[in-house]
Amino acid sequence: MTDGDLSSRRRAVMGPGMRTSYERPLHAVSAEGVWITDVAGECHLDAYNNVAHVGHGRQEVVDAIARQARLLNTNTRYLVGVVVEYASRVAGLFPGDLGVVIFANSGSEANDLAWRIARTVTNREGMVVTEHAYHGATALTMATSPEETGLDALPPWVTSVPAPNLHRGDHAAGPEPGLAYGQAVGDAIERLAGVGHLPAAFVCDTVFASDGIFDSPSGYLATAYAQTREAGGLCIADEVQAGFGRVGERLWGFAGHGVEPDIVTLGKPMGNGHPLAAVVTTPAIADAFARRGYWFSTFAGNPVSAAAGMAVLDVMESEGLARQADRVGEHLRLGLKGMAGFHACISDVRGPGLFVGVDIAAGSGEPDPHRASAIVERMREQRILIGRTGIHRNVLKIRPPLVFEEAHVDLLLEALEQSIVDSRWRNGCLAGCGAGIRPRFRYGSSRPLAT
Amino acid sequence: MTDGDLSSRRRAVMGPGMRTSYERPLHAVSAEGVWITDVAGECHLDAYNNVAHVGHGRQEVVDAIARQARLLNTNTRYLVGVVVEYASRVAGLFPGDLGVVIFANSGSEANDLAWRIARTVTNREGMVVTEHAYHGATALTMATSPEETGLDALPPWVTSVPAPNLHRGDHAAGPEPGLAYGQAVGDAIERLAGVGHLPAAFVCDTVFASDGIFDSPSGYLATAYAQTREAGGLCIADEVQAGFGRVGERLWGFAGHGVEPDIVTLGKPMGNGHPLAAVVTTPAIADAFARRGYWFSTFAGNPVSAAAGMAVLDVMESEGLARQADRVGEHLRLGLKGMAGFHACISDVRGPGLFVGVDIAAGSGEPDPHRASAIVERMREQRILIGRTGIHRNVLKIRPPLVFEEAHVDLLLEALEQSIVDSRWRNGCLAGCGAGIRPRFRYGSSRPLAT
Repeated sequence: MTDGDLSSRRRAVMGPGMRTSYERPLHAVSAEGVWITDVAGECHLDAYNNVAHVGHGRQEVVDAIARQARLLNTNTRYLVGVVVEYASRVAGLFPGDLGVVIFANSGSEANDLAWRIARTVTNREGMVVTEHAYHGATALTMATSPEETGLDALPPWVTSVPAPNLHRGDHAAGPEPGLAYGQAVGDAIERLAGVGHLPAAFVCDTVFASDGIFDSPSGYLATAYAQTREAGGLCIADEVQAGFGRVGERLWGFAGHGVEPDIVTLGKPMGNGHPLAAVVTTPAIADAFARRGYWFSTFAGNPVSAAAGMAVLDVMESEGLARQADRVGEHLRLGLKGMAGFHACISDVRGPGLFVGVDIAAGSGEPDPHRASAIVERMREQRILIGRTGIHRNVLKIRPPLVFEEAHVDLLLEALEQSIVDSRWRNGCLAGCGAGIRPRFRYGSSRPLAT
Repeated sequence: MTDGDLSSRRRAVMGPGMRTSYERPLHAVSAEGVWITDVAGECHLDAYNNVAHVGHGRQEVVDAIARQARLLNTNTRYLVGVVVEYASRVAGLFPGDLGVVIFANSGSEANDLAWRIARTVTNREGMVVTEHAYHGATALTMATSPEETGLDALPPWVTSVPAPNLHRGDHAAGPEPGLAYGQAVGDAIERLAGVGHLPAAFVCDTVFASDGIFDSPSGYLATAYAQTREAGGLCIADEVQAGFGRVGERLWGFAGHGVEPDIVTLGKPMGNGHPLAAVVTTPAIADAFARRGYWFSTFAGNPVSAAAGMAVLDVMESEGLARQADRVGEHLRLGLKGMAGFHACISDVRGPGLFVGVDIAAGSGEPDPHRASAIVERMREQRILIGRTGIHRNVLKIRPPLVFEEAHVDLLLEALEQSIVDSRWRNGCLAGCGAGIRPRFRYGSSRPLAT
């Protein structure tokens, strides 16, 4: 079956809603570490999939899943030691009162439950989200995901604030941008009140992945959380993207900002691809929810998921992957910033740990989503997988498995510069980047990497 | 750590909302086939867990999961052969136009998506559900789950109909109960219209697991679906409980009733415990939804889930488990009906395939939830796991893995009669069942079964 036949068959049996990435979809057959092999046997460097957190096909995780699936897979209506043990271990990764871990099967489910907990506990409906947020695909989380619905389709109980963009945003040039963006949450709460809704919660993805990839500026979360709490709302940190060391040794996007969320949600990397997610909250909130709300899921908190999650933590800790994310991420950002000196289309390089955003601009400095798209496609043709995000869709999204190393970064950088050069001609005219046809900048070692 | 310590630790780290079954929770450590072993090494006959569809710890499924998890686990943004192959295979199990399979991670997610599809495609909000339905734990599905919320808490866009109970319901004694219960859906749609809501969908669990376990009476689904369609709504069959041969060789609860739903949802047994669920619908509905709605899930439709689902189908087919469900279920129902002749507390025995409900009544014939609860607890002390359901919570729920055999049924029946006898004294007075202290009825072979 050709790839075209497979795509057609897929469209017929899985529907037209299942979209693939890239103009020429990747037909994957196997993967290991940071490499995905396609049907032709070609290896692709995976700089995009944060789910394969400790590496594709990671033997320790596979073994843990297989061992536990053979031994016992059941639900939380029974006592199972490994589930309690894993919940304890996850709880131990959080500060202060964040000691209750409620399992779910996906980030969507975790966020849906988190919103529901916030609304039940506060007895309110209102939600404040960032203006290009994505929080999930259930009805409730989709209603708070303007990335998919558009701002105009938000229901009256949802309002939005700009993400804390220090490069392009309204408050980017101000004296205290963190404070100004944080105060916008208070303004949003007033707008909600104006249409008759009190805030149940303010929620942000702490790496603002859909808004364009930002680390919270100084004072941002503290101000936003203070405004929310003053109005009686809860503060939810969506760590589905940022969590488990993606942002480096501090482990969580909210960490290091002097705040403690009321609710944290986890997902994607938690089980290295095994469907596993969670809501983490305080005993007081968990108790209040249990009195008036209900959560049970047949699959959530099953021992196989717990075993997968435990194996992920074991590998992360034994290999120091959170620290590696800081180190390799810094190597990547330095390389990109160096490249920006030669290529004006790179107007900003940002993001914490191994979650890096590259803002692509036209000659005028305006966001250039077409160029960004061309770069992503050229990268894919060079067999390096990255993505694109942001409110203007002009930000390259680089978010590899945490086992990514400096040498992989160097491969990526070389291909990226080539892609930038190639993409100058993409729209039939010369974009304002670089002088020659060949890449100018050289990156670290170019030694061949074992696949 | 004692079981009490583990329970306390669990309550602390997983919250008070995670309830366990039974007065003395089962601390499970391993399971195989139809047996669950507790921490003391005691084997328990599992007559409750329909999730372990082809048996606990089933080697073929474990091997498929391990093989695929080592090879490739990724998301639907890439083309992956096994995912398309499995979707095709699931689609092939449905009649007519039901040819599009959209994957999810849990029955809750599948139902949430199904409701969202129905509402998007019809551009309406209204939902008709049965009056003790349970459809999931997301905000949207919980709002349509009166089992958890109570009928009074249903939002105005949800209304309920009685489940087609031929034993106790309003229309049980009428000449054409299927027709009468089906027409109640039309009445419900009128009530919805009265409060300004047009029906997006009528949905029922086709085995009415939460309402008390019923097979649809003759004419019921045809009438209910006709009324729904006449009003412009879609018909959703929630097959999360009934599906994949639980109801016998016809495979689906809706099958054999001369109807074809617009949307079917699948879950629990689909991956033998691996988090896997799906929405099945027609190309026309999938296309209409894709134009205006959005669904993507990081984990849903991953190749490991597909491999698990495929292995479940392989085992089901090679061992004829759907046929076995009919045969063993019939053996169970016959035994129960025999027992009912000696024990008046068994007022009804019902349910299709291997999903059997036993209605427990007091001397007056009224539902007796206390006795039912006592029986379930006595069964657990005899190391046989069953549950309890129904709008009056008086129906024993017997829903074992499909690999359950006649000899297991015989063990269950003997223990059940003992439990019935024992439970007569439970509330300090003699219930109207049986004459002697010892069980009177003898069941098939009592040969020891390999564990």
